[in-house]
Parts: sequence; C-alpha cells; structure tokens
Amino acid sequence: MNTVELIIKKRTGKAFSKEEIIFLINSYTKGKIPDYQFSALLMAILLKGMTKAETSYLTEAMLHSGKVIDLSFIKGAKIDKHSTGGVGDKTSLILAPIVAAAEVNVPMISGRGLGHTGGTLDKLESIPGFNINLSLKEYKSVLKKCGAVLIGQTKDIAPADKLIYSLRDVTGTVPSIPLITGSIMSKKLAEGIDGLVLDVKTGSGAFMRETKDAIELASSLISTAKAFNKKVIAFITDMNQPLGNYIGNWLEVYESIKVLRGGQRGDLVDLSLNLSGAMIYLGGKAGSIKKGVEIAKEQINNGKAFEKFVQMIELQGGNTKFILHPDKYPKSKFIRKIRQIE
Amino acid sequence: MNTVELIIKKRTGKAFSKEEIIFLINSYTKGKIPDYQFSALLMAILLKGMTKAETSYLTEAMLHSGKVIDLSFIKGAKIDKHSTGGVGDKTSLILAPIVAAAEVNVPMISGRGLGHTGGTLDKLESIPGFNINLSLKEYKSVLKKCGAVLIGQTKDIAPADKLIYSLRDVTGTVPSIPLITGSIMSKKLAEGIDGLVLDVKTGSGAFMRETKDAIELASSLISTAKAFNKKVIAFITDMNQPLGNYIGNWLEVYESIKVLRGGQRGDLVDLSLNLSGAMIYLGGKAGSIKKGVEIAKEQINNGKAFEKFVQMIELQGGNTKFILHPDKYPKSKFIRKIRQIE
Repeated sequence: MNTVELIIKKRTGKAFSKEEIIFLINSYTKGKIPDYQFSALLMAILLKGMTKAETSYLTEAMLHSGKVIDLSFIKGAKIDKHSTGGVGDKTSLILAPIVAAAEVNVPMISGRGLGHTGGTLDKLESIPGFNINLSLKEYKSVLKKCGAVLIGQTKDIAPADKLIYSLRDVTGTVPSIPLITGSIMSKKLAEGIDGLVLDVKTGSGAFMRETKDAIELASSLISTAKAFNKKVIAFITDMNQPLGNYIGNWLEVYESIKVLRGGQRGDLVDLSLNLSGAMIYLGGKAGSIKKGVEIAKEQINNGKAFEKFVQMIELQGGNTKFILHPDKYPKSKFIRKIRQIE
Repeated sequence: MNTVELIIKKRTGKAFSKEEIIFLINSYTKGKIPDYQFSALLMAILLKGMTKAETSYLTEAMLHSGKVIDLSFIKGAKIDKHSTGGVGDKTSLILAPIVAAAEVNVPMISGRGLGHTGGTLDKLESIPGFNINLSLKEYKSVLKKCGAVLIGQTKDIAPADKLIYSLRDVTGTVPSIPLITGSIMSKKLAEGIDGLVLDVKTGSGAFMRETKDAIELASSLISTAKAFNKKVIAFITDMNQPLGNYIGNWLEVYESIKVLRGGQRGDLVDLSLNLSGAMIYLGGKAGSIKKGVEIAKEQINNGKAFEKFVQMIELQGGNTKFILHPDKYPKSKFIRKIRQIE
C-alpha cells in the first residue's frame, strides 16, 4: 500500500478499509511512515471524518499495537468508567471503592491531567507512598484482592496511542471525534473490561463546549464499544462550573474522603452516585441504574465504600494515616518539600 | 507566534494575516518549523483554502525567500509565459523566438517534467551541448544579446518553493489552488518580468481535469499577478489530446523547428501563435492580441523567428548543426549512448 495514495484517499473524503487502517497504524508505530506524512493524514481525518466502521478499525489497530490484559481469572464483571475531564472532577476516587464494595470489579488505568484539568493520577500521588506504577502482575493482584485498582498508563498498553497523541498535540489535530474515540477506547479495551460507563462533559469548562459535540463523541464511543461487544452507558454531564467544592490534588482526595464517609450533598455526590449506579447495573448487581444508585448509597451509609478506599490505598503503598485522619495531612510543609525537589 | 495555534486557525477556516504568512514561510524555510507541523498546515490549507489576499501574501513570502532578478538594464518589456503542462506541449520552444523576433524580451526560467508530462528543460537538453544551467550573469547576458533565454530553476530563485513542493509531493497536498499559485507565481515574479501569459490546460491529459478548476486556478494566478502590478492574460486550453504530432524530447525540438520554419498547421501552431500574440500585445508591440498574432505569423514567414531560435541555441552552447539540419540528428546511436551511460 502507498501512504501518499492513502492520504489522498482520506483527503478526498473516502473511507478506508480495515486493511488500510491496520497498514497505516502498524507502519507508523514501527517508524515506517514518517511523522510529516502521518500528520497530514491526521489533519485529513480531522477535516474529512471517519465512518463508525473506520473508527472501530482504528481502535482495533491501536488496541493491538500493545497488550490486552486478560482478567478472566477474576470472578465477576469488570466495569470501568471514563470521563473526558473537568476541573474538580474526582469521581474516579469516589466511585471505584463504591462499586468495588458492591462486588463489581473496577480495573482503572487512568491518565494525567490534560490541559487545565487535573488527572486522577496526579491526585492519587498526593497521598504519600501511593504507587501508580504497578506492574501488570501487581495490577491484577490488587484488583483480585480488593476489587478496585487505579494505576497509570504503562508502555505495554496501546503504544500507538502515545505516539499518535504526541503528534496530534503538536500539529493542531487533537479535536477529532474518531481520533479521540480511538485514543480512549484502545486504552480502555486493553484493560480487560466487560463494560464501560462514559461521562462526557459539556460546557465552558469541558473539552467539548457544545452539547451537540459531546453527544457526537458519546455516540462514537458507544458504537465503538458495541463493535467490541462491550456493555456501555454514556452520560452527558454539565461542566460549566468545577465539580464539588475543592480543587487541587490533595484537596480533591480530601473531598473524596468526605463524600465516602457520608452525609455530603451536591453535584459531586449526585454525579458519583449516578456513575456508580450505572456501573453496578452494567456489572449485573442491579436491575436498573436507579436500583444501582440505591445500592451505591448503601455502600456509603454502611461504611463499606470507605473501607474499600482505605484497602485500595494500602494495597498500592499509600500511607493510610492521612486517609483515616486527613486533617493531619502536612499541607504547607509537604508542598514546600515538593517545591525543594523541583 | 505559535505554530500550533496558526495550524488550528487555518483548520477552523480563518484567514491568516500577512505577518502570520511571512512568519510561517520564513520559519519553515529556516528549518524552525518541523516538516510534521508544516505538512499538517499544508493539508489544512488544501482543505480550507486561502483568500486571494492570503494567496498574494504567500506568493510574496515565497518570492522573497530568494533573489528577485533585476532586468531593468534591458530595454523593452519582459514577458514570460507559464503553462500548467501537458503531453506534447513544446510551445515554449516556439513562442520564445517568435516573441523575441518581435522585439519583446522573453526571460524564461522553466521546470522539469511533472508527472506524465515532459518539461521544457528535458526537451532542450536533447540538443547536444545545450546548457540550461546558466549563472544569473550569463542568463542576463543571453537575454540582452538575443531577447530570449531558457534556463532551469536555480537555488537562488524562491528556495521556499523547492522545500514546500518536496513536502507537498510526499504528503498528498499538491492540488491546492493557493499553493499552486504561490509555487508558480513566486518563481515567475523572481524572473524580473513585466507581464505574464498563462496557459492553463484542462481535460483528461491536464493536471486540472475539470474546466471549472482550470478557471479557478487561472483566476487565482491573475489576481496574484495583478497584486504585484504585473500585466497578465490567461488562456484555458484543451488538453484532451497531446499537442502537435510528436512526443519525446528530441522529437519535440524537431517539431518546433518545423513550426518555426513555417508552412505548418494544426493545434500546436494555433496555440503557439495565440500565446505569442498575447505576449507581443502585453509587451506593447501590438494594440490587441489579434494584431499580436499577425505580428507573430510575420516572424515565422520572414524567417526571423527561426533565426532567433538558432541564435538562442548557440548562445546557450547548443550544437546548431542539428537545428539547421535536424535530419542529421543521430537518433538511434545517441539514444544507445545514453542507455550505456545509465
């Protein structure tokens, strides 16, 4: 196959075959297509689009550039959540222990902050000792022991995504629905999940400012998940204001602890419960999302969600003293120490 | 200025300012913008277009990446012709001596073949001894002596075009009206011309297959020439069949000699006379194109056009024996010799 002819094919609005997409992704990942050709292709994809079939082929090619984790040795459903990100969004920290407490496994491979939004990993690393760089063996072991695990991207998972995202970032080709879909879904499918709950943000603080764009992205993610026979539910949620009342890595862990200990109200609690409810429903532990939300509330009220959180932090090396007594967290001193290291 | 922001600006359909275009062309020419960013920009330009003002700024930036030849020391008008190319098109070889015989200077910096069409340089090089690689000093000297000169691209002329064209060629970004306009006009304006006659081909053998695309390109070239205060006339001509009866480098020189010696008829003669007539008109030696065509015919009939051709070949080092006695040209032997060298 000829790369220039394929660029022209996309530029003139035609759809790629599965073989053509596999050729392009494999050749680029192996360094056989230079960056200057791939960036022209990325711009053509951004401006001319991809069909749902092409988007699934793209996701598949990116997924198979790396390992696909096999979690079949763990009993019960494995359900993850993906959010497109927003300021103050610490729902992953809250819903992972809730859903695990409801006996649905939550295998999460998470990302760093993108743009102005903080990442789940950055927040977790504010807990002294917490290790986000588990090996795949440790990842499986923590998941088996407590039903939830939260680690960072490893080089084994969808390496094509890392390469392509780096190029998109410097060539003005980030906001393309098929490219975003391939990036998100190739990593999520590699986790070994059975189902996925999507939280697609919309509004002034979101990556997708317009609701119609958020719906288009959600629709693309759903059709790709279905192409891989995964259960999927998407929420379009408001990101015109930051979520919750605290912003900043440790402060967001602190707010998560407050929510998990119960008695809180507001947008963060509502969203966390809805996402948890959907995950519990997809995991087969509730007959509806509404019933799933009720089960999620129970896990907070009976203390099990917080217990799971403490267990997960401990299994990943975190100092649970600060989780059990968050007011002891050495805020200013710790911040000063980090600054000295920098 | 930020390159990624400028790529995004074009990708979202906005027009660049003059300063932005100068920044992009200068930075790329100096190696300060990497190929992978510039190719994404080229694809965005191809798919989103450029205004006539942007196209003129692009041409100006590309023109000033190199030298602009000053021909003001030569009396009389300097008029060139540019053709978008087609099989069998040897009109440059015919019209340059005709127009020079009519006392209008023809300073031609020509190109190699593109795609399936032969280039004027390739044809001229079939004349033993003919040198297309004159220095700028020699170029001026030949033009002053005989009123016509035909050389190849030098590295001093619009170096940005060479760099950008190489990248377009391998990234599927060739057929963009503003990019083609910048490429053609930056080189033509560097020649030191007062006016330009354009021959934009259309049809199955042309780069622009559709007449509407040929008209769009002609319109873009005209508006850019006018932005530089150059006189300009464009012809849209048919390229559904090869031009004339001979194809092949020497055979096209041979056919040109036949036309210049007079008594020939057909599409090649008609087109050559029309383009010559327009050049003579733009050069101020005729009151209309029609009158220019009459003057062109006279130059063939009175033998002056052929004399000019012989003079130009001689001044550029060509063996005029084969021009005066073309049947002596050692066809098969010469071809065999070339094959041995290869």
